[in-house]
Amino acid sequence: MRDAYVVGAGQSNYGSFPDESYRSLFRTAVENTVDSVDNGIAIEEIDEAYVGTLGVGGRQLGLAGPAVTEHVGLHGVPVTRVENACAASGYAVRQAVMAVRSGMADVALAGGVEVMTDLSGDAVRYWLGVSGETEWERLSGTTFAGVYAQMASAHMREYGTTKEQLSHVAVKNHDNGAKNPKAQLGFTCTLEDAVNAPSVADPLTLYHCCPTTDGAAAALIVSEDVVEEFTDEPIRVAGVGAASDRVGLFQRDSYNAVPAAEKAGASAYEEAELGPEALDFAEVHDCFAIAELMAYEDLGFCERGEAGPFVESGATRRDGELPVNTSGGLKSKGHPIGATGAGQVVEAFDQLRGRAGERQLDDPKVGLTHNVGGSGGAAVVHIFEKEEGSA
Amino acid sequence: MRDAYVVGAGQSNYGSFPDESYRSLFRTAVENTVDSVDNGIAIEEIDEAYVGTLGVGGRQLGLAGPAVTEHVGLHGVPVTRVENACAASGYAVRQAVMAVRSGMADVALAGGVEVMTDLSGDAVRYWLGVSGETEWERLSGTTFAGVYAQMASAHMREYGTTKEQLSHVAVKNHDNGAKNPKAQLGFTCTLEDAVNAPSVADPLTLYHCCPTTDGAAAALIVSEDVVEEFTDEPIRVAGVGAASDRVGLFQRDSYNAVPAAEKAGASAYEEAELGPEALDFAEVHDCFAIAELMAYEDLGFCERGEAGPFVESGATRRDGELPVNTSGGLKSKGHPIGATGAGQVVEAFDQLRGRAGERQLDDPKVGLTHNVGGSGGAAVVHIFEKEEGSA
Repeated sequence: MRDAYVVGAGQSNYGSFPDESYRSLFRTAVENTVDSVDNGIAIEEIDEAYVGTLGVGGRQLGLAGPAVTEHVGLHGVPVTRVENACAASGYAVRQAVMAVRSGMADVALAGGVEVMTDLSGDAVRYWLGVSGETEWERLSGTTFAGVYAQMASAHMREYGTTKEQLSHVAVKNHDNGAKNPKAQLGFTCTLEDAVNAPSVADPLTLYHCCPTTDGAAAALIVSEDVVEEFTDEPIRVAGVGAASDRVGLFQRDSYNAVPAAEKAGASAYEEAELGPEALDFAEVHDCFAIAELMAYEDLGFCERGEAGPFVESGATRRDGELPVNTSGGLKSKGHPIGATGAGQVVEAFDQLRGRAGERQLDDPKVGLTHNVGGSGGAAVVHIFEKEEGSA
Repeated sequence: MRDAYVVGAGQSNYGSFPDESYRSLFRTAVENTVDSVDNGIAIEEIDEAYVGTLGVGGRQLGLAGPAVTEHVGLHGVPVTRVENACAASGYAVRQAVMAVRSGMADVALAGGVEVMTDLSGDAVRYWLGVSGETEWERLSGTTFAGVYAQMASAHMREYGTTKEQLSHVAVKNHDNGAKNPKAQLGFTCTLEDAVNAPSVADPLTLYHCCPTTDGAAAALIVSEDVVEEFTDEPIRVAGVGAASDRVGLFQRDSYNAVPAAEKAGASAYEEAELGPEALDFAEVHDCFAIAELMAYEDLGFCERGEAGPFVESGATRRDGELPVNTSGGLKSKGHPIGATGAGQVVEAFDQLRGRAGERQLDDPKVGLTHNVGGSGGAAVVHIFEKEEGSA
């Protein structure tokens, strides 16, 4: 199996952009990705591409891959759309790694895009709903906020997790997002703001829920055979893990954990031959505050049931023992469905390469990204490692 | 790079099944796939899955992969939806091959499904339209029949191809489909039937167009390390090729060829270290009769411009030098969008394993499948080879 490396990653701004299209946003992400490659790269050097998108709004439901890659001047090469709801581009990255490892590609582009903010609230609920279980969730009126509210309630009942602890996720992630010029909601919030915000689906308040977002992100994954052409500071894909689960929450064994994420994490740690204690930072899928807390436990950042006290302790702040969501996360940076997984890789790349500006950590070597589809029907985890001896 | 093998393949009936769902059809395809494995296989032995579907009708637009794999009892493993319009499951097969070659999976399921016949004509046109170029094709009212009619007109003008020659495709494929118990339109037709049928988009008549179809298909792709557990008669994936092109026909260099298919074919031949003269049969993407003629030329079955006389000569009939679409093709067997590419692999497997019943060829060794997305925005070609010395 050949090793795969990240040699570039970039994204558009995240936010509401009525003057942009899914194509122009994707182009911006690819342009910024190309610009991030130390020794440069021409579009013609890319020999494979994966595009993650849910296709919210129905703009281009078929051939959405070629529809955006043609707009960046990438013609002729195999282009495949990958979809696993909110984990679409996390899986796109995994497919690019697989393409490189298989020997079928040397330079693979993995990206994602979504445009959401031009839709009404009802339309957004419909388009997110079609990623939920149809019969007993969507058609019975359950929204994703409702599903995650059930998970939050279960976590609170089982482990004594509090609304204040959920709110610490929002405070931390907004504090990070305020230092990310690409973030959609780049302002800080207080614990009181988060606790007292209007209820969306009890116990989740507005500050416990990510926004709807337009945006795109991409990364370039290359093989060990060509990596030196592009950079002297390669970031190795040390571990990849992915897993599925029943789409409907009610069909799973647990309401207060995401088994697919736990499996995906275990696979990624095994492949990388390291555990959570080796991580210098992580980007996790905080679509709702409870999702970040479950991620801590699913990925072994703390013991099962201890995520509330763990976030409250400050352990996952930028100055904590394991900074989580330095980008601002889905909560503050934003959550353009199809772009989110690739966007996490952008933050990992930026942190490992010292490109993270005001939110830069102190010389991190190992980072993890965690991307969840639906309420846990799919999950994918990547571990990225700065090569020893690289500059 | 590890070798990948097909050890099983199966499908549902193709047709209109108001009592079935996308999940039940997929389950039937997987059950038939499992039944086709010589030494048997348990669902738990599958460690990766790819599902191709366009999601026509909007039943499950997100997490469509896990939504169908959970229904066959496949839980926990990575499941990824792949979409490239009508080439969705051809690409799913390619991803499964890649997973095996990369070493990230040993036993990969690749399948596809679509349910279409419960929709109105207008709804079908909408759902297919979203795979076309948006601004200058779909929103200006051009249907896929209209796009392929333009290609047929260009081919006629450039090469003198006739309506009778287009009709020979229909006669041949219906003759094959009449011997396929899974076919949707399993009846024969005459040249007169095809020529004189009502016009759909001039010069294409009803018999030059495939139907809308419900159906599912799947294949099991395994690594060289485990293939002997499943069969003594492995079918090797000898070559894989894929390519993209501009989504809109008007943006391409040619109206009477599919450059992406030509590229995909060339890559597959190169990898398989053989040319079209080595093929014993092929399944090509005959969504419209002109598409089959262009495939002959794109894949080198005949010279450019000679496809009309080539089909007229009988060369691609079951008793010809290179039988094409022994399954009945999309025209007679049917075209359940997301299932079509995997369904072609089912026919290749059945022919190479002597399972093709009344349409069985005489001991074929090498077969090709050719799957096109949209009007040629994506294409994928596989070459399958019966291992020498296998029973």
